[in-house]
Amino acid sequence: MDNRAIGVFDSGLGGLTAVRQIRSILPSENIIYFGDTSRVPYGGRSKEILLKYARQDVHFLRSFDIKAIVVACGTVSTNALPELRAENDLPILGVVEPACRRAVAVTKKRRVGLIATAASVRTGAYAETIRAIDPTVEVISKACPLFVPLVENGRDRPGDIVVETVAREYLEPLKDAGIDALILGCTHYPLLTDVIAQIMGPEVELIDTGAEAAWELKRTLKARDQLAGERQGEAVYCASDRPEDFGTLASRFLREDIPSVREVDIERY
Amino acid sequence: MDNRAIGVFDSGLGGLTAVRQIRSILPSENIIYFGDTSRVPYGGRSKEILLKYARQDVHFLRSFDIKAIVVACGTVSTNALPELRAENDLPILGVVEPACRRAVAVTKKRRVGLIATAASVRTGAYAETIRAIDPTVEVISKACPLFVPLVENGRDRPGDIVVETVAREYLEPLKDAGIDALILGCTHYPLLTDVIAQIMGPEVELIDTGAEAAWELKRTLKARDQLAGERQGEAVYCASDRPEDFGTLASRFLREDIPSVREVDIERY
Repeated sequence: MDNRAIGVFDSGLGGLTAVRQIRSILPSENIIYFGDTSRVPYGGRSKEILLKYARQDVHFLRSFDIKAIVVACGTVSTNALPELRAENDLPILGVVEPACRRAVAVTKKRRVGLIATAASVRTGAYAETIRAIDPTVEVISKACPLFVPLVENGRDRPGDIVVETVAREYLEPLKDAGIDALILGCTHYPLLTDVIAQIMGPEVELIDTGAEAAWELKRTLKARDQLAGERQGEAVYCASDRPEDFGTLASRFLREDIPSVREVDIERY
Repeated sequence: MDNRAIGVFDSGLGGLTAVRQIRSILPSENIIYFGDTSRVPYGGRSKEILLKYARQDVHFLRSFDIKAIVVACGTVSTNALPELRAENDLPILGVVEPACRRAVAVTKKRRVGLIATAASVRTGAYAETIRAIDPTVEVISKACPLFVPLVENGRDRPGDIVVETVAREYLEPLKDAGIDALILGCTHYPLLTDVIAQIMGPEVELIDTGAEAAWELKRTLKARDQLAGERQGEAVYCASDRPEDFGTLASRFLREDIPSVREVDIERY
């Protein structure tokens, strides 16, 4: 038993969709969340800058007594995970590998779709990870750069012609390619589940990277005998800019209200 | 006569619409442009962080031998101009004041509209500046947070249902309010001129902040006897991240091709 907290970070608030899954799958765990809202978005940054930001984020989370870190940011998970793991003596889970394993497990047609930010797609990390698990599975990737701003501006519901038009343009080539599993490779995308499911149809399984990371975290903590004792876990939320704006968006990502947010000067870490 | 260059900076590439206007209105001037693409967007950042970024941008431009600076970023112009002017012994022009003066000069109905990023609208700087020039002019402001990502993803032409739907939602309240001048308070927005003009109609004058800043710059340099001698001015382009991506978007903002882009580590300034 280990009641120390789990650290979770993302470039902004999107990672709260992963926190929501962790709290649902591991309700006894304490969570420290850091959203780097002063430097969001990470998608589109160079590898050097991403690595610098990710190291500062980890350094901040380790200023607490934590037992594991979940990198809820797809861009960091596909760009900086080996470096972070080599530099830290605790489990660091990304959102890429667990989702890829799930995709390989469920695809019958051996054709998996991936939607993500331009930077995540550009690295090819999802496709490489899937190829390493099963080289017979083909990955068809599509960058969806407008999904994050649309979600952040509340345009995420079926019936909104703006998000539906954009989503159809992004997703129809994937549908036409005959995929039967689609990785939502950005933490914002679970909010678009209804819009995406409507376009892709019931024969395509949508894979929530936050949920898969949460299951992987549960397996890891169990194997290390580090699950928390039975109780109601608590969560602390930190952001590097405008913590006063955190609440509105955050409650949509997390689907619960956030009591208070602590401001962090991340450049100091 | 003064052949030293003019420094221009913006959070990203949007400021190139101002460079385009400066090159058109002052064709003999040399220009050094810096786009802070590693930290874009500035809109939404706190005042403290904006000031820090703006100081670094100015410090970088002053590493060249320059005679004036144009702050092409609306967010910095509305948040950090007094500080930058107090700290530097050369003319620093923003994009807010010249546009406000133009709006007051052209509005017959004494009702001016402002569209900008959420951060620029939040500061109230445009409304305050107009009130200081003429307290009888009413300003109706509207944040348009999706315009920048739509422009950056090429959705800026009439006939695109996505940008037209979003633009109608943003602009119709301004039209209903009976404005006859509309300040395009973000450097990206000139690319939406056709979409905006179609919704607002011919009775509303659209004010391009970059063009007004360029005219103000011409007046300032002339008054100081610092205009360049007659010749074809040259431009140097710098960016803090992904200079290789600069070209595609930049040529759309600037409407000419960019030969090469220099990468700058802005955190060092």
